[in-house]
Amino acid sequence: MSQRSFLPIVLAAGLGTRMRSEMPKVMHAIGNLPIVGHVLKTLNAADADRIAVVVGPDMQALEELVGRLAPGASCHQQTDRLGTAHAALAARSALEVPADDVLILFGDTPLVTPAAISKVRDQLAAGADVAVLGFEAANPFGYGRLLIENGKLLAIREEKDASEEERKVTFCNSGIMGFNGKVALDLLDAIGSDNAKGEFYLTDAPEIASRRGLKVVAVAGDEEEVQGINTRAQLATCEAVFQKRMRQMALDNGVSLQAPDTVYFSHDTEIEPDVTVEPNVVFGPGVSIESGVTIRAFSHLEGASVGKGSTVGPYARLRPGANLAEGSHIGNFVEIKNASVGAGAKVNHLSYIGDATVGEKSNIGAGTITCNYDGFGKHKTEIGAGSFVGSNSTLVAPLTLGEGVYVAAGSVVTEAVSDNSLVIGRGRQVEKSGRAEELRARFKAAKAEKS
Amino acid sequence: MSQRSFLPIVLAAGLGTRMRSEMPKVMHAIGNLPIVGHVLKTLNAADADRIAVVVGPDMQALEELVGRLAPGASCHQQTDRLGTAHAALAARSALEVPADDVLILFGDTPLVTPAAISKVRDQLAAGADVAVLGFEAANPFGYGRLLIENGKLLAIREEKDASEEERKVTFCNSGIMGFNGKVALDLLDAIGSDNAKGEFYLTDAPEIASRRGLKVVAVAGDEEEVQGINTRAQLATCEAVFQKRMRQMALDNGVSLQAPDTVYFSHDTEIEPDVTVEPNVVFGPGVSIESGVTIRAFSHLEGASVGKGSTVGPYARLRPGANLAEGSHIGNFVEIKNASVGAGAKVNHLSYIGDATVGEKSNIGAGTITCNYDGFGKHKTEIGAGSFVGSNSTLVAPLTLGEGVYVAAGSVVTEAVSDNSLVIGRGRQVEKSGRAEELRARFKAAKAEKS
Amino acid sequence: MSQRSFLPIVLAAGLGTRMRSEMPKVMHAIGNLPIVGHVLKTLNAADADRIAVVVGPDMQALEELVGRLAPGASCHQQTDRLGTAHAALAARSALEVPADDVLILFGDTPLVTPAAISKVRDQLAAGADVAVLGFEAANPFGYGRLLIENGKLLAIREEKDASEEERKVTFCNSGIMGFNGKVALDLLDAIGSDNAKGEFYLTDAPEIASRRGLKVVAVAGDEEEVQGINTRAQLATCEAVFQKRMRQMALDNGVSLQAPDTVYFSHDTEIEPDVTVEPNVVFGPGVSIESGVTIRAFSHLEGASVGKGSTVGPYARLRPGANLAEGSHIGNFVEIKNASVGAGAKVNHLSYIGDATVGEKSNIGAGTITCNYDGFGKHKTEIGAGSFVGSNSTLVAPLTLGEGVYVAAGSVVTEAVSDNSLVIGRGRQVEKSGRAEELRARFKAAKAEKS
Repeated sequence: MSQRSFLPIVLAAGLGTRMRSEMPKVMHAIGNLPIVGHVLKTLNAADADRIAVVVGPDMQALEELVGRLAPGASCHQQTDRLGTAHAALAARSALEVPADDVLILFGDTPLVTPAAISKVRDQLAAGADVAVLGFEAANPFGYGRLLIENGKLLAIREEKDASEEERKVTFCNSGIMGFNGKVALDLLDAIGSDNAKGEFYLTDAPEIASRRGLKVVAVAGDEEEVQGINTRAQLATCEAVFQKRMRQMALDNGVSLQAPDTVYFSHDTEIEPDVTVEPNVVFGPGVSIESGVTIRAFSHLEGASVGKGSTVGPYARLRPGANLAEGSHIGNFVEIKNASVGAGAKVNHLSYIGDATVGEKSNIGAGTITCNYDGFGKHKTEIGAGSFVGSNSTLVAPLTLGEGVYVAAGSVVTEAVSDNSLVIGRGRQVEKSGRAEELRARFKAAKAEKS
Repeated sequence: MSQRSFLPIVLAAGLGTRMRSEMPKVMHAIGNLPIVGHVLKTLNAADADRIAVVVGPDMQALEELVGRLAPGASCHQQTDRLGTAHAALAARSALEVPADDVLILFGDTPLVTPAAISKVRDQLAAGADVAVLGFEAANPFGYGRLLIENGKLLAIREEKDASEEERKVTFCNSGIMGFNGKVALDLLDAIGSDNAKGEFYLTDAPEIASRRGLKVVAVAGDEEEVQGINTRAQLATCEAVFQKRMRQMALDNGVSLQAPDTVYFSHDTEIEPDVTVEPNVVFGPGVSIESGVTIRAFSHLEGASVGKGSTVGPYARLRPGANLAEGSHIGNFVEIKNASVGAGAKVNHLSYIGDATVGEKSNIGAGTITCNYDGFGKHKTEIGAGSFVGSNSTLVAPLTLGEGVYVAAGSVVTEAVSDNSLVIGRGRQVEKSGRAEELRARFKAAKAEKS
Repeated sequence: MSQRSFLPIVLAAGLGTRMRSEMPKVMHAIGNLPIVGHVLKTLNAADADRIAVVVGPDMQALEELVGRLAPGASCHQQTDRLGTAHAALAARSALEVPADDVLILFGDTPLVTPAAISKVRDQLAAGADVAVLGFEAANPFGYGRLLIENGKLLAIREEKDASEEERKVTFCNSGIMGFNGKVALDLLDAIGSDNAKGEFYLTDAPEIASRRGLKVVAVAGDEEEVQGINTRAQLATCEAVFQKRMRQMALDNGVSLQAPDTVYFSHDTEIEPDVTVEPNVVFGPGVSIESGVTIRAFSHLEGASVGKGSTVGPYARLRPGANLAEGSHIGNFVEIKNASVGAGAKVNHLSYIGDATVGEKSNIGAGTITCNYDGFGKHKTEIGAGSFVGSNSTLVAPLTLGEGVYVAAGSVVTEAVSDNSLVIGRGRQVEKSGRAEELRARFKAAKAEKS
């Protein structure tokens, strides 16, 4: 960890009109974390001391989001949009507090790694006044070119201003720029707006610094990690890179993914080694899986923890607050929400278990529904250990079933049941001989009449 | 739009034996539209005045399909299969009615665009007598080569007849050929069958026309869009291209696709901007989605409309006639068929709602089933606004629930319920103390006896 | 088929620590068959007379697996792990019984084909004493290079021992080596351990044989098929190749896969021509599908047979013992386990049918559950032909419904029902006028009090 104090400034004021969305661009999500959240997470991992985020006017939701994701960060409004240098200067109050390293980066580049940020800071620590993160572009068209001479960065040349010779340069500007804190504000203030649009461009900084005899350098990053997001297609492309990283990490940790490309992770998914994940599984936020678990195909998990050796799915949906103890089984077309399922318990088919506890080794039959909602409040169902809930039962909460209770199939249970009781709540079977034929004749006639 | 009259002739008589199917090849689907339907749709978009389709004998189903998809089109039977020119001449009666532009194309190339057809017609409008759509083949082996000299197309040379020099040509025949209507029939009639198989090949037309001093040209199309379908593998390849196009179009329109490659569209899917689609979603035919909607993972929609801001899935199945009003919620393991769901209404878990209307802001509990079928006819269930249907209820249609009705969980409801009534239809709960232990002993003994 | 007797030796003693698994590496599965199972299956297809498998100590589970998958195979323990030649010699007792062809291969290369093995054996039949299967490596780094001179294999040079010139060789060792049975044991015994690790390497055999003037050759295989598995990532890569092969085979057989990349096969999946498979379908082991069937999206099948013209899914789960007769329909969120569904019968929505028979043309309503389990044993439900089971019914096994029975919706049925009877088992509907409003007031107040 560097001893130098570090102030990153995240530019996030852009509207992102090409997204065609009512939501600010950087609030769209990658791996279920807003784009800007990835940047903030990376800055924390890169030991930021203070983070300044420049937002646009009327971006209350974004400011709240930043507050939630990075409690110490300061938000600064850029009221007019007059270019990137103007945006950075919206954080003037943050820049006025001394920092060794200042880094300006964009809130729409979620894939930047702490390692890339360290590379830039290493240059500052080694004496650079300005250090630009560049990348070798597969197709440089449209990017600003980094003009290097004798290891010094002379300028960043935009496509439209570049000579034919300069256009051949493939080393391009990522938009991430480090400054020696002592000169940062001064350099930013020196940027003018004498250009076609009359805006203040951050990309002028290297040339200004060069002319002043300051040390200006560029370091190479990876094209994949510096890509920005302006469109939904780019959002999807970054999501794909993010997922590729997460899948590789899981495989490296000893997780079996039968078809890695069909497993979707969230930014915070935690999976222990020796877990098997079948094709087509979606991990929403807040999931942790212990070793020995099998997550079968077509399962969807959010806010859930799955204990050692359990089996989930196929077609299991674990919603927030689903906590499965060791060796439990959740089967097909089962939804578990805000419920604890005890060790070795089974909920194997077509059930809804919400706001409930299911005791150890209990068996919940197919089609069981906990009725947790009365139209206003949610109520709790407690099922004791070793109970057997017959199929198609309806458990009306608030409800407590003791231990070892046996619920007859098809029952509606509305009142507490004591330990080891059998409870029945269903109609008595009546057979009407020959009546099926009469019914068929009647229904058939009714249908004929209709048509 | 061109002022010139336009007659396309679609050759669709092939059996497609390599598909190993009982169905004519061009009836297999891409994006849930038969292959030939894509061609017909494109021809309509390209302002065809009349469309002639050449079919084989005993292809009644195909003729009906053409009639349904392109009501004005004429079908012409090719009774013997004696080559492509012979096939085109099966439409002699259509060719005898004057047209400025005649275009012959294959019914098995679903990806051709209106733009490509315009390119060919532009040549005809500019004076060409024959205009062939060519493409640069990545691997030309097996394709007819377009032999060009001084901008004129001299001939189409088949692989087997080509010299070593000619085989190096990579500009190949797509099979799409435009004719000046004044010479089309005459040229087709001039094609002979003096070849190994004794068949009449359309590809002879350019050479014949050239020899007559007519103007014969070639224009370049895109290899991807001219690929034909002879096998299931090629069917899958074309489907993949089609899906890629649809995904890109959705992204460009401001739709978020978290994992574009896992979303399957139909040819007629309509999605407004600012809709989010999670991974693994299938859109069958006839779906329209308004803005602000989220379609969650593993959902399957067909013939459904989803109103503004609604949430669908995960694991929701909307079947034909599912119409969701603004702000409705359809959750997991829920099937909606021929039913209207009112604004703000919720059907969140494990339900079947068929042939029904659900009033505004009603809440349908988990496990609710509308019993719409009696073995002969379908009957309707009407649920008034602001009603609450308790979990695991059975609603036996025909049935009307008034507004603000409250159905007790686990009830079977068979008769109409008036506004603001509570309705109960379930057995009374009976507890038999200690009986669970007796049962377990009995079941255990029975099991032991068996084994 | 060769007349020569054939003894393959499968080296499977490796721990596979890079898998980070408690299970021996070769027991991990590809297409639902353990890795080593693919090798054994291939050896059987390649007419092995006897198979010897070398396992590590404490690999009881692997020995049992080998016994199950290849009943005639012998297992040999390598107690210390002193290199590949040492491993092969653990099968000394097998080697001592004369065989014309001996082949040593690795248990972790599941994609090797019978054709590749034949290539090696053809060399032995043609007089080679040692025949190595090589491959052209896209990136040879890390592989042993095959040093060839005048068609003779002089040696296998490991990366670390190779000269700069030798490193340029791209023809590499696959690890699969054939021996003339007459010299195999002698050559293996001649391998020494005079190297850095003091281990006995099989790759020394060609050089030793060359020096003895024996005929040593190499034949070229395909890089894809010789890849070994050491990590979960490689496991996933091999699975992907395996699935690609299976998909291509299905397409070639006349199966329509709308999105081939989303369909997962098992090693033993059998599908007839003219079957359509929609996106996102998983075939577990033991599935056979007859022609004319449509498997809709998001379906999951294991141990099931599906009769001609049936429709399955979307979201259908067929578990072991699900046998669907011709023209049956299994719909969404339906689980069928150990049950026969008669011709033309329908189970269309949200049902669990387990340990049951459903008669021809019967209709099982939405939400029907067979209660087959009492906590100890499983019991059978028999539903006669032409029956109609109303929605949300609970059928408590053991239970027999006759033919033409009509079960009223929402019934719990516990006792046998005779032919053509109507059976009802549910509560009577009671309406409490105005009570819904009272309830809402009460629930609302309760909620207010809580918060």
